[in-house]
Amino acid sequence: MLRIITQQADVKAELQRICDRTHDEQVLHKEATVREVLQAVKRQGDKAVLHYTDEFDNQILKAEELRVTGSELDAAYQQVSKDLLEAIRLASRQIEAFHRQRVPKSWVHFGDDDIVLGKRYTPVDRAGLYVPGGRASYPSTVLMNAIPAKVAGVPRIVIATPPGAQKAINPAVLVAAQEVGVQEIYRVGGAQAIAALAYGTETIPKVDVITGPGNIYVTLAKKLVYGTVGIDSLAGPSEVLIIADEGANPVHVATDLLAQAEHDPIAAAILLTTDPALAKNVQVAIERQLVDHPRRIDTEKAIAHYGLIVLVESLEAAAELSNEFAPEHLELEVKDPWAVLPNIRHAGAIFLGYSTPEAVGDYLAGPNHTLPTSGAARYASALGVETFLKHSSIIQYSQTALNKVAGAIDALATAEGLPSHADSVKRRIQQDE
Amino acid sequence: MLRIITQQADVKAELQRICDRTHDEQVLHKEATVREVLQAVKRQGDKAVLHYTDEFDNQILKAEELRVTGSELDAAYQQVSKDLLEAIRLASRQIEAFHRQRVPKSWVHFGDDDIVLGKRYTPVDRAGLYVPGGRASYPSTVLMNAIPAKVAGVPRIVIATPPGAQKAINPAVLVAAQEVGVQEIYRVGGAQAIAALAYGTETIPKVDVITGPGNIYVTLAKKLVYGTVGIDSLAGPSEVLIIADEGANPVHVATDLLAQAEHDPIAAAILLTTDPALAKNVQVAIERQLVDHPRRIDTEKAIAHYGLIVLVESLEAAAELSNEFAPEHLELEVKDPWAVLPNIRHAGAIFLGYSTPEAVGDYLAGPNHTLPTSGAARYASALGVETFLKHSSIIQYSQTALNKVAGAIDALATAEGLPSHADSVKRRIQQDE
Repeated sequence: MLRIITQQADVKAELQRICDRTHDEQVLHKEATVREVLQAVKRQGDKAVLHYTDEFDNQILKAEELRVTGSELDAAYQQVSKDLLEAIRLASRQIEAFHRQRVPKSWVHFGDDDIVLGKRYTPVDRAGLYVPGGRASYPSTVLMNAIPAKVAGVPRIVIATPPGAQKAINPAVLVAAQEVGVQEIYRVGGAQAIAALAYGTETIPKVDVITGPGNIYVTLAKKLVYGTVGIDSLAGPSEVLIIADEGANPVHVATDLLAQAEHDPIAAAILLTTDPALAKNVQVAIERQLVDHPRRIDTEKAIAHYGLIVLVESLEAAAELSNEFAPEHLELEVKDPWAVLPNIRHAGAIFLGYSTPEAVGDYLAGPNHTLPTSGAARYASALGVETFLKHSSIIQYSQTALNKVAGAIDALATAEGLPSHADSVKRRIQQDE
Repeated sequence: MLRIITQQADVKAELQRICDRTHDEQVLHKEATVREVLQAVKRQGDKAVLHYTDEFDNQILKAEELRVTGSELDAAYQQVSKDLLEAIRLASRQIEAFHRQRVPKSWVHFGDDDIVLGKRYTPVDRAGLYVPGGRASYPSTVLMNAIPAKVAGVPRIVIATPPGAQKAINPAVLVAAQEVGVQEIYRVGGAQAIAALAYGTETIPKVDVITGPGNIYVTLAKKLVYGTVGIDSLAGPSEVLIIADEGANPVHVATDLLAQAEHDPIAAAILLTTDPALAKNVQVAIERQLVDHPRRIDTEKAIAHYGLIVLVESLEAAAELSNEFAPEHLELEVKDPWAVLPNIRHAGAIFLGYSTPEAVGDYLAGPNHTLPTSGAARYASALGVETFLKHSSIIQYSQTALNKVAGAIDALATAEGLPSHADSVKRRIQQDE
């Protein structure tokens, strides 16, 4: 049952409790395991990768089986329906179109005294994308990670994804990868995959940036290798917060809440509404839709533990509570969503109006579905082309320009006790040297 | 003595050794201490902060002394010279002007069928800047961290910096802070400062992003709280790589190498040159300048252990070696630096030509001096306004637009085994509901 509380209750504490939910309490214990895996792969390369693939994924591979072959890639196309292929292609086109907008471009500015300043953007040399296996092996993950890397101009993009039974990889994942031009796919998952991508092995190349979601082992491994390589973010369990008024359809709102809850027993689904009737009707609709839900047990758990309906006094109050929570996904199911928008400060993605369910953005509207979770929207953004780009600052001073700032640099360098800093300018402006 | 090797030697292994230098081998041991500090501050707030300030900084403070007072802020102006104040103001103006260029702006795109897509940029609510104490207490650190936060529009910016003898803070740091509008300064350093900013205490506010350099304890603490808050980067020891041709002045090149080495006994200073005479003359000039260098012992250590001159066959070969190293600072002391630039893929900041010593960028050219170290320029960039901004994706679909993509979303959601995702669209397009 999805609980209904009023704003008089301790809503902030409830939202904090939900925000603080994590995939696991025994993180420190698991971190020890992850450290061991990282060290072993760093030292022993493929040998350790194969060992842990046997231990954790129960698949006995040889090194030459790590890379998915050309014939497997070809065969995958026979295993997906025409409808799915076309959907992947539509999503791919729309995601690429969105990511091609406003890509940072290199620039230089020419100032007085022949000073040149600027930023020069370049892509990383190699990107490694992690695609989970099992129940969460999604073709959409491939599109949302590979397309920004491709738009950034990354010359070498590789995918790591764990082998399932009979060493197989989800054909929809293999098709999505090929549709966006990625052919280099390794059959490896978990912390051993992150280690292989961070340090390189005989078979798997060391990359510069690792992106993509994963279980707690993958996330811990990404945190530990951060600094050796770049990472996108530390993804936690998923969440949606819906702000709805009396015009919202309770059946639609209920389905949207369930679409979040069905991901994970600790997904969070929160409704803030000004309308008591809507609250009640959503509660009833959820119960009804849960009856024959194929993922009923896990979905019900999420709704019971991390689901909540809050009756709020106004849409302004709702926006303020939403800002406290900083949701990954925010739906504004209200008559005039653009009037609410200015009050929203922190949210990963914002879905406006009654006819924009989150699923549109999850799959194909174009913006990235890899979004900050667990309050990280207070400081972080969606995965994007920028994740795979970096810039170098450009600075050129002329002799005239240097002469003019020499005194100021001397004052600063002297105050900071760095004599050679001062000398590096002074020696250049002395005429007699 | 600064060693000279030729490209025939195993240059790549040498560069790798230098790149892999770190502040400490016993990281795991220190991490245990840092974890303890983080936990204590999280649970006990000010009490733990004061305890560790006594233990690590040898300063006994009361909670009400944590915040620097208005009269201390005023008094700081009496303690800095007029020259230094003017230099801080010049640097501040130039850094702000650079950071105001090309700041990401919110945008929306109106597509067919009333689809609206876009990105909405907002600043973080609160930023915490760390400024080291002791020998590395620099006013330039304040400017380089606070100005991007200010340009991003962060409403509340606070500084944490450890107390020195008699609880004092470097007046140049206090002046620099006030010059860029930051008045909220806390007398706390080390891991306890990072913990206080990440979790909040009775006195010190919880922030959303923590930036700024620090020793190994600060860096470990930043890595551990990453995910609870955003961070800028994990700064390692500093480094410069200079590519020079026969036109470069050996005394200038030597001074630039020493300007790096004087930061830290494990700073790295590397010269790649096509000219054997230059190599020899730089080596001699370094010895000469070291004789009466005020930081001779540490600077000599850096030069001996992590200094290197490599004789290269061409500027193209130099660029390729530089890309392998991905230096924090790259000086192109060559006749036509713009001809070398296209071959450079990875560098934090690039200084072009004979009259652009790194010190120009360290202090006042405008670009940020907080740059990726230890090879991180392969995937990371300078601190910037973006560090304090994040965006929300904006998605609005009309009923017509939703109808058109319903089939594709159904195909994808069904393939991914997420029935409520499919239903959230199907229920909205059924006429009879």
